[in-house]
Amino acid sequence: MPNLHTALPVVGMVGGGQLARMTQQAAIALGVEFKVLADSAIDSAALVTANTAVGDYRDFDDLAAFAASCDVVTFDHEHVPLAHIEKLASSGVLVYPGTHALPYVQDKIQMRERLEALGAPIPRWRPVETVEQVNDFAATHGWPVIAKAASGGYDGKGVWLLNTSDDASSLLAHREFRLFVEENVAFTRELAALVARTPSGKSVAWPVVETVQRDGICVEVIAPALALDDAKAKAAQQLALRIADELDVVGLLAVELFDAAAGVLVNELAMRPHNSGHWTINGSVTSQFEQHLRAVLDWPLGDTAATAPVTVMANVLGGDDGNQGLANRLPEVLVDPDLHVHLYGKAVRPGRKIGHVNICGDDVESLRARAGRAADRLRGGQL
Amino acid sequence: MPNLHTALPVVGMVGGGQLARMTQQAAIALGVEFKVLADSAIDSAALVTANTAVGDYRDFDDLAAFAASCDVVTFDHEHVPLAHIEKLASSGVLVYPGTHALPYVQDKIQMRERLEALGAPIPRWRPVETVEQVNDFAATHGWPVIAKAASGGYDGKGVWLLNTSDDASSLLAHREFRLFVEENVAFTRELAALVARTPSGKSVAWPVVETVQRDGICVEVIAPALALDDAKAKAAQQLALRIADELDVVGLLAVELFDAAAGVLVNELAMRPHNSGHWTINGSVTSQFEQHLRAVLDWPLGDTAATAPVTVMANVLGGDDGNQGLANRLPEVLVDPDLHVHLYGKAVRPGRKIGHVNICGDDVESLRARAGRAADRLRGGQL
Repeated sequence: MPNLHTALPVVGMVGGGQLARMTQQAAIALGVEFKVLADSAIDSAALVTANTAVGDYRDFDDLAAFAASCDVVTFDHEHVPLAHIEKLASSGVLVYPGTHALPYVQDKIQMRERLEALGAPIPRWRPVETVEQVNDFAATHGWPVIAKAASGGYDGKGVWLLNTSDDASSLLAHREFRLFVEENVAFTRELAALVARTPSGKSVAWPVVETVQRDGICVEVIAPALALDDAKAKAAQQLALRIADELDVVGLLAVELFDAAAGVLVNELAMRPHNSGHWTINGSVTSQFEQHLRAVLDWPLGDTAATAPVTVMANVLGGDDGNQGLANRLPEVLVDPDLHVHLYGKAVRPGRKIGHVNICGDDVESLRARAGRAADRLRGGQL
Repeated sequence: MPNLHTALPVVGMVGGGQLARMTQQAAIALGVEFKVLADSAIDSAALVTANTAVGDYRDFDDLAAFAASCDVVTFDHEHVPLAHIEKLASSGVLVYPGTHALPYVQDKIQMRERLEALGAPIPRWRPVETVEQVNDFAATHGWPVIAKAASGGYDGKGVWLLNTSDDASSLLAHREFRLFVEENVAFTRELAALVARTPSGKSVAWPVVETVQRDGICVEVIAPALALDDAKAKAAQQLALRIADELDVVGLLAVELFDAAAGVLVNELAMRPHNSGHWTINGSVTSQFEQHLRAVLDWPLGDTAATAPVTVMANVLGGDDGNQGLANRLPEVLVDPDLHVHLYGKAVRPGRKIGHVNICGDDVESLRARAGRAADRLRGGQL
């Protein structure tokens, strides 16, 4: 039901992480009421929204009670049980992305089967249950191979590099989840194509960006990707738009890509605002967070054009000296007057993603240096 | 006291209007906790902040209880009794702007006396208590004259155009407040110079903007002001920076100016984020709301450069068909993909300021038309 005081719709997001937190900033501008179902009252988004519902996204009753106060329900993460979402949807709740789209991000094996069926370019892969299957795969595609858990992975978790049959043995001995292996693609860099799509099927694509990973964690995004030829950029955008259409995604879709000699290959999908799109808050006419709201409300989508020649995003990871260290250093990095700091209100733990910085301008190397320096300093390094 | 979970400072704003609402968006990014002391739980900012304190800003105990949970206290409006602020400050609360600066916005007669003493260019004026004093002033400076209430005015309220001695008689017969009169300056347009200043005395100025008023209400802002010669722009910025210094303003200072043949004249001052600075949310590297937070925290100030050749802001006023009318029309105006809508969560009443739109680009006339059309349509006119 729309908000009593404004008649504008109420959007509910399941999950109170930083994606919900930044969606709240966009909701404030649009005047729509934004509610989160958070695990606790001190979740990142719960700290900055009114009327936070605290509950368990794995509990159907908590989800249903939350949904009852919203016009549309969407997600900050992919972990809500599909059966619950199906039940909500069949009781008439608008849930975006929907139950036909979500399986492909909840289960990476289903994702690959579907992408393959669509003829989308992906690394060669196969589900594995035995060491022999891994060995067979490696015999054809060579060692090392990448093993991934079908579900539950993020930020490098749930991904293993297997150099030998022994590596495969020890992984398979301890696994408690379905696994698959992928060829270790020879890529030159990673890209991401971000698109948004409405229930009516309208969609838009942002400029393709370059993502830089370290230890499986995205540390930097350069928007747009450097020296990406137009044909490849266009192909990546068209691929992401087509996947959004075919999977009937509503809201944001991030397509993580390998930039390989033969063209781009899909690495992973995410159906929500995504780290590779944080640059849009300061570097695009429409931020991914506002766009996600517009999309799930079936409103017209905003312009995805970049507002500066280059925007660089650097993730801020927690340092060793806790919250007080971060608080002490924040004013120091603001000495760079062009730096946009985005902190998530999270308790600082070593290596935890606690924020990001954006900076827009012309000279990519200087922007990368400034963003990187600020992120390092916030973590506790020297300025 | 800093936030328990993040160690970052807590900024409290007295007043829960749209200025506080938009400051919340900036606070979310910086990671500082932002609290409002609101008149009610459905105030514009209360709708979008956690832990809103509901209380009366005219009540010292409410103010003191609120201030006890904040590291710094600042204001969404100028109506907090000065005696209360003095008492807070003398008990050790950091209050910005402070008690030496605030009298000049709480009392327009004191403002003019002080500006005169500084040698700042202002229209000729005098306090008046009798019709004879108005007649004397008009005999020297000509009819009509402008009469203003020394305090409490906003958006054209508390301002009267007196064409004759009879007008003066009827105003003075009914007045319940101190008055002054001003010459009716022959200006070509109105400008505004927005600056920010820290407790350490660092300050920055945004590009000077043109403000367009209708019925005493600002309806449009063009940033930067069109065809403003560099010397005049520089003079306006320097004037605003000098006033901020001399009055020891901390936070935002908006200087409303008349653009007259002989140069700029100060019309009014506001010591808070200001309608003339709403364009900065989308059109400047640093928004006035983030800058206000940085200033009151004594953090380094952000870059005030424009991010586009022109940004146009148009205020959205309430139409005749209430909340539902606005809600119905919002998606229609979003068809312009470059439009940034900012709604305040306020109940729609005819003529009430309920939001604004920003649009950035190159062609000022086209941007004015698009912003104006969107604002008109949100009010209920034809698109």
